[in-house]
Amino acid sequence: MTKLWDEISKPSFVINKKRAIANIKLMARKFNSQNILFRPHFKTHQSIEVGAWFTDAGVSKISVSSVDMARQFFDAGWRDISIVFSFNRREIKALNQFSAEAQISILLEDLDTAKYISENSTADLNVFLKIDCGYHRSGILISEFETIKNIALKIQELPKLKLKGLLSHFGNTYSAKNKEEVQTIFESSLKAINNLRDFLSPNFPDLIISIGDTPSASLMDNFSGVDEMRPGNFIFYDWMQYRIGSCTTDQISAIMLCPVVAKHADRNELIIHGGVVHFSKEKLEHYGPICDISNGFGTDVIDGVYLKSLSQEHGIVHCTEEFFSRTKIGDLIGVIPVHSCLSANLMKDNTVIY
Amino acid sequence: MTKLWDEISKPSFVINKKRAIANIKLMARKFNSQNILFRPHFKTHQSIEVGAWFTDAGVSKISVSSVDMARQFFDAGWRDISIVFSFNRREIKALNQFSAEAQISILLEDLDTAKYISENSTADLNVFLKIDCGYHRSGILISEFETIKNIALKIQELPKLKLKGLLSHFGNTYSAKNKEEVQTIFESSLKAINNLRDFLSPNFPDLIISIGDTPSASLMDNFSGVDEMRPGNFIFYDWMQYRIGSCTTDQISAIMLCPVVAKHADRNELIIHGGVVHFSKEKLEHYGPICDISNGFGTDVIDGVYLKSLSQEHGIVHCTEEFFSRTKIGDLIGVIPVHSCLSANLMKDNTVIY
Repeated sequence: MTKLWDEISKPSFVINKKRAIANIKLMARKFNSQNILFRPHFKTHQSIEVGAWFTDAGVSKISVSSVDMARQFFDAGWRDISIVFSFNRREIKALNQFSAEAQISILLEDLDTAKYISENSTADLNVFLKIDCGYHRSGILISEFETIKNIALKIQELPKLKLKGLLSHFGNTYSAKNKEEVQTIFESSLKAINNLRDFLSPNFPDLIISIGDTPSASLMDNFSGVDEMRPGNFIFYDWMQYRIGSCTTDQISAIMLCPVVAKHADRNELIIHGGVVHFSKEKLEHYGPICDISNGFGTDVIDGVYLKSLSQEHGIVHCTEEFFSRTKIGDLIGVIPVHSCLSANLMKDNTVIY
Repeated sequence: MTKLWDEISKPSFVINKKRAIANIKLMARKFNSQNILFRPHFKTHQSIEVGAWFTDAGVSKISVSSVDMARQFFDAGWRDISIVFSFNRREIKALNQFSAEAQISILLEDLDTAKYISENSTADLNVFLKIDCGYHRSGILISEFETIKNIALKIQELPKLKLKGLLSHFGNTYSAKNKEEVQTIFESSLKAINNLRDFLSPNFPDLIISIGDTPSASLMDNFSGVDEMRPGNFIFYDWMQYRIGSCTTDQISAIMLCPVVAKHADRNELIIHGGVVHFSKEKLEHYGPICDISNGFGTDVIDGVYLKSLSQEHGIVHCTEEFFSRTKIGDLIGVIPVHSCLSANLMKDNTVIY
């Protein structure tokens, strides 16, 4: 155990700075080399300090998912911010507080909201149309060429708004089980959105295409047909991304450290301080594997030892006999989060840079 | 829609003060009339303002689930605080910062931790032994009479620690489907822990019994054999408690309000700003039913309309055709949270008292 470990007294989200920066640099190089704008999504870390690591890697344009988050990074000095969430019109006043001093892009998927924003925004805004390429969460269905064209033509006439491009999130890659499945989704979605761009090009010759899921960003090599990439999760990765194949465990740069508060020998289970309010409740085969932190930060998975259940503040760790017998009450254990974005969000006030 | 609704621009946790206070008063009366100490669990709301409503109802002793939470309420003036979570020894220094100026009770389930706390605490502490009556999360198994007696006898000899009682959380009532199932768990668990108290009484004639799940607290009438009750969730209740039968919908005092940001007519679905970072990810048959807020705060469930899925910031609402057609982008919708404690925790900075 390192000295830092001795100082940790409660559930903590520990970021390995070296690994996180390596993840940033790898991604930046990949996109820079193909002349693709790298506009990372900051909803993953929501941290001014971590944001500065991106600045060091040459990043100056970012994505966020709410007006609040845009404001947070605006206040920290960022000036080119895309709010890549179908715009919540109730927040136009909050956006007007700072949008004139920045280059803000918003996401729209209907004409009524476009009109509302045009009438109520005090600043010029870039607009991306949200296109649903098959994930079926939000966006206009990719098949609706005429609808999309009509909306685009009308937005073009609205004051304050400038149509910049087509944006999609290939979120169905998160359900993929391997690189081949990611590739199938990526290639078919990208082809479809490029067909749409071709269809619109007589009226809109300069539309850019913005996509951005971490599985595609990590696993694909050829981004021909993409102008802007917006991955977020890759800075930390997590168990979900490892299972998809987006990363190795050595690339995972954030783990949870939790104190052991009880041992139950009758069932080889440890009780940790660390529950839903720390991890959130994302589950795959379990709520996260236990990793070896005996030599400091580490992400080597300990076979057969995992977070079995979570309540508000408690976690139950299923153990092998060996791990159970060598772990003491008062020790810390390391857990690879299933979904690092959710843990990072919950642990904003208990994050440690290692 | 009320004027307040117009002022809400983002996902908000709305507490109906009148209903919350009625829930507090009902519970306080129930326990006061049976001479049972009412020590409500403040992890549900974690709010100084809401805490004051308990003061008004005569409450002066509270339960919390971490040293941080104890500190928060200590700073707000509370002086009799039980930390009802198997004590995390790494936080003894944090506890020492304020424990001498308060009456702190802690929860223990092993002798080694007891010794550690005895050696490292700067203040006298009351101790409850955590007993597992069948929930199997944490605590010493109720069947282990001799083990419990030995731990109790040794704790008695340790400086700083005073054994006050036996504490259990009948958390298996949360999986009950009706009052009868709650009653079965409550009565059998209560009988078992009273048998344990009887066994210990020659050496410890004054041990009290502390229990506290909301289903038992809400549904049972006879608390003979209980000295202290620690429910927390009842102040708000939620969809889970309604499904168990702990409350009517009229008693639910907290809902989420979320702006509609998109409509998808091809699948009768609304997209709301409101995701895992607002609701957490507790699920029953869905992530929460939609309720009628057309006349202000309300909890009348709209049949067939519910939160179908959640990602980090997005929620997808499955609608009837009727609800879909009358709901507009920019409207707010109301959602009854599945587990209000988790939503309240996430929404600390976006809570509205109605």
